[in-house]
Amino acid sequence: MIVEAHVVRFDSISLDGGATLAPVEVAYETYGSLNAQKSNAILILHAFSGDAHAAGVSPETGKPGWWDNMIGPGKAFDTNKYFAICSNVLGGCRGTTGPASINPATGCPYAMSFPVITIRDMVRLQKMLIDHLGIARLLSLSGGSMGGMQALEWAVSYPEAVVSTIPIAATARHSAQQIAFNEVGRQAIIADPDWSEGNYYTGKPPARGLAVARMVGHITYMSDDSMREKFGRRLRGKNSFGYDFDVDFEVESYLRYRGSEFVSRFDANSYLYITKAMDYFDLSNGNGSLAAAFERATARFLVISFSSDWLYPSYQSQEIVRALRSRNVDVAYCELPSNYGHDAFLVDVGEQTELVRGFLASTYEKVAG
Amino acid sequence: MIVEAHVVRFDSISLDGGATLAPVEVAYETYGSLNAQKSNAILILHAFSGDAHAAGVSPETGKPGWWDNMIGPGKAFDTNKYFAICSNVLGGCRGTTGPASINPATGCPYAMSFPVITIRDMVRLQKMLIDHLGIARLLSLSGGSMGGMQALEWAVSYPEAVVSTIPIAATARHSAQQIAFNEVGRQAIIADPDWSEGNYYTGKPPARGLAVARMVGHITYMSDDSMREKFGRRLRGKNSFGYDFDVDFEVESYLRYRGSEFVSRFDANSYLYITKAMDYFDLSNGNGSLAAAFERATARFLVISFSSDWLYPSYQSQEIVRALRSRNVDVAYCELPSNYGHDAFLVDVGEQTELVRGFLASTYEKVAG
Repeated sequence: MIVEAHVVRFDSISLDGGATLAPVEVAYETYGSLNAQKSNAILILHAFSGDAHAAGVSPETGKPGWWDNMIGPGKAFDTNKYFAICSNVLGGCRGTTGPASINPATGCPYAMSFPVITIRDMVRLQKMLIDHLGIARLLSLSGGSMGGMQALEWAVSYPEAVVSTIPIAATARHSAQQIAFNEVGRQAIIADPDWSEGNYYTGKPPARGLAVARMVGHITYMSDDSMREKFGRRLRGKNSFGYDFDVDFEVESYLRYRGSEFVSRFDANSYLYITKAMDYFDLSNGNGSLAAAFERATARFLVISFSSDWLYPSYQSQEIVRALRSRNVDVAYCELPSNYGHDAFLVDVGEQTELVRGFLASTYEKVAG
Repeated sequence: MIVEAHVVRFDSISLDGGATLAPVEVAYETYGSLNAQKSNAILILHAFSGDAHAAGVSPETGKPGWWDNMIGPGKAFDTNKYFAICSNVLGGCRGTTGPASINPATGCPYAMSFPVITIRDMVRLQKMLIDHLGIARLLSLSGGSMGGMQALEWAVSYPEAVVSTIPIAATARHSAQQIAFNEVGRQAIIADPDWSEGNYYTGKPPARGLAVARMVGHITYMSDDSMREKFGRRLRGKNSFGYDFDVDFEVESYLRYRGSEFVSRFDANSYLYITKAMDYFDLSNGNGSLAAAFERATARFLVISFSSDWLYPSYQSQEIVRALRSRNVDVAYCELPSNYGHDAFLVDVGEQTELVRGFLASTYEKVAG
């Protein structure tokens, strides 16, 4: 598999909130080869804490990409046939311009002077990248969670550029509960004195607040069942309760580890901006209804949800499917049985692979034929 | 309704963790009158953040008790017939000895030198109170959530003193997910520098950490549905997004309010100790199995759960019921339909009232007959 990693700089981008960012950089990776007709490109869209490194092994970190089990030769997104592209989102902290980037006007990091962004802004920047690559139409787009939201936004904002789209474990709008979990994470960060109104780049980052935010996240990504299977009430390195506030249970140890590990790879201000973008996302906004929003969509859809995902429950995917069908959009839907909760799109990819493989093959055939 | 409020002091109590607390005080309230035979006493057991003020209007705060819709003349716990007692739990911060209490050995608050306690320790202190009141047998005990855990522990630890018990929205053991949510709350408090290893009683309390912990709690107490009904995506005092990090959504405003309001009435160290007691709770501990634990139980049981309660899901109540039935214990079980999530036992009490009323009447008849 040919893997390339690039950063491209554009002069500026106009944002939904009215601001303009200039310049703006996008970090992206590609897997496989674009064919001569440029008809085999698939845009992979990462979730909240993901990055452009979706597949292969990073020469820097030695780590596989976040969707390496889905992207590669013979995999769901088969790089022997398709050309996959994945970019870090606007507002991120892994190569694309975000709050940790230097504001050329001041020579200092934007921090909280970074403009509030939306999912549509992220998609707008991705469209600039796709244009830059000379690709007029994407054979498909796919991502889970926030990646799925972007896949939906693409089909509505740039219908002429989207042959098909595969939103997974996603929603057309954040519910009150989803907003609430994000708000808790934001408040945990803001409550940390080290956050310093966002100006921590020359000092200590708000590590404790960010870790707590991440701990909440990890609970919501797993199901009650998968936590029981993975941890149960097993104690960590002891045979009986400690009767103190050290770690007693395996699950406590896991959460503490995931919280502190996250701090080393994620910027707290990006946490604030990206969660805000997710909360603002509502495909029906400005369209009257979700069905009306899909009026413009011409892509084929494959919508996937997971039975035990309580953070992005199946009813949210079904709402998308109903709205699409009401506008006679070509949509296939599958709720896959899985115990892994929201994490299923990342870790339980057997049936997901079969669905995606078949959907892409038939889509490619239509385009080629 | 006759309401009395008292504090009683005992010389000492021995705890599961091996420590002894001396002295120990218990704050309690009573509603109605104990009959001559002392056969109409019902112990009401509060949940995590509750207190002894279960019914009537507090002369201090002017606020109704936390279960005022269930306790009073003509209500489920009918004070025209029954004598209800509610005490603040051991480790609490509302009159009963807890980490904020003065350690007589030092003249300073215990803070983190307070011994780690268990649900059984809480119940042991309640038994001392009941003995002090000269009540040999309780007609019933009831509470939701952590109160339900105590109701279960009573039936196993003091079978001779329990005629019937009504655990509501409870569990015989905390699951990994329940432990995880408690651990996040604890870490949010501990992460707050104002926590100062628990020694904040002469300074600022860890208000921000405690607020974040409470925000997480409130999400888990409601259902996805009830949050949608109560808040949806409604904006707070504005017609469009602010594109900043002030409050945009009603649900954000609600959580921030509940978080900061909690700080004024709850001690952060009590949060640590009481959640730890809940996490340690496992009725099968030392008994081999849950069914074996119920071997000793002689009480009649009424077990209630709520359909939309995802924090203490019905399967946990059903596990209790199956274990009781395997030991031929007299048990009635009902899963009540409600959209209110875990909060249902506090706010959606129509059918709960009918169930409790009938169960208490038939229990009282048996005792009297």
